Amino acid sequence: MSLMGRRIDYFDDPAAPAANSVKPSAAAFVLCDGAVLLTRRTDNGNWTMPGGAHDPGESLSRTAVRETLEETGVTVRLTGVAGIYTDPRHLVHYTSNDEVRQEFTVVYRAEYVSGQAATSSETTEVEWVPADAVADLTMDRSQRLRVEWALTQQGIWIDPTGD
Amino acid sequence: MSLMGRRIDYFDDPAAPAANSVKPSAAAFVLCDGAVLLTRRTDNGNWTMPGGAHDPGESLSRTAVRETLEETGVTVRLTGVAGIYTDPRHLVHYTSNDEVRQEFTVVYRAEYVSGQAATSSETTEVEWVPADAVADLTMDRSQRLRVEWALTQQGIWIDPTGD
Repeated sequence: MSLMGRRIDYFDDPAAPAANSVKPSAAAFVLCDGAVLLTRRTDNGNWTMPGGAHDPGESLSRTAVRETLEETGVTVRLTGVAGIYTDPRHLVHYTSNDEVRQEFTVVYRAEYVSGQAATSSETTEVEWVPADAVADLTMDRSQRLRVEWALTQQGIWIDPTGD
Repeated sequence: MSLMGRRIDYFDDPAAPAANSVKPSAAAFVLCDGAVLLTRRTDNGNWTMPGGAHDPGESLSRTAVRETLEETGVTVRLTGVAGIYTDPRHLVHYTSNDEVRQEFTVVYRAEYVSGQAATSSETTEVEWVPADAVADLTMDRSQRLRVEWALTQQGIWIDPTGD
């Protein structure tokens, strides 16, 4: 039995627990020389873009830059937005405190400024992954869709509203 | 003395109360035949884009569409994003419950689908305002900057991160 909390992603799953929280997060899609800056999460082993929860007192764009530096050692500059992901069918269960958070993430586009990719306490691996190798990584389905969107689309993903 | 709560905007003001809340909101910049759909708030008399707070269980894009319909009677379809506004120096004080909310608003771009502009309990006026008449309206400074950005820029506003 692990003492460490787990993170479990649900998508449109009748077995998902009910949401009890909404907390804005930011992530960074960092593309440099045809490679994407990705990390491997300590909590569930999946590859993901760097990012994390918004702290009151900072802008959400600062969240993206701060989390990227903390998780990868790389300083980035934001250049735009790849998508806003707020689908209420997407829930994340944090087992450490039984928080069931409705997904709410802005994915910013960013460019490399400085620093060398290095692991942190939240990540077991940090890599610049060539775009054509992303498909081979173990990723949560929703995360894979976001990276693929950012790699192939110029526009911003916004959630459908059912109209 | 009014029984109704007031909404007071602060921007980079040393006299502002400390933030005690962050709540994502969405607004809609709706442009049709050169006119912008704007409402006049009941709480402070300022003109503003339709919008409001995100409800758990809905996407943020749905928030923008729902609030626009509720406040103006107009059904819109989202077409993109004009800006993400999360500057921690921008605080809104709701006097009804003493909530001091750090600003966190996504402004979506939207197009007209159906419906006739009409007032609601939250608005005293709803108008399609010709773009060149916006400057004459009474607006909060930050709201004016957002409308002007959406009218004149194709890209997305993102908050500076100080780099």
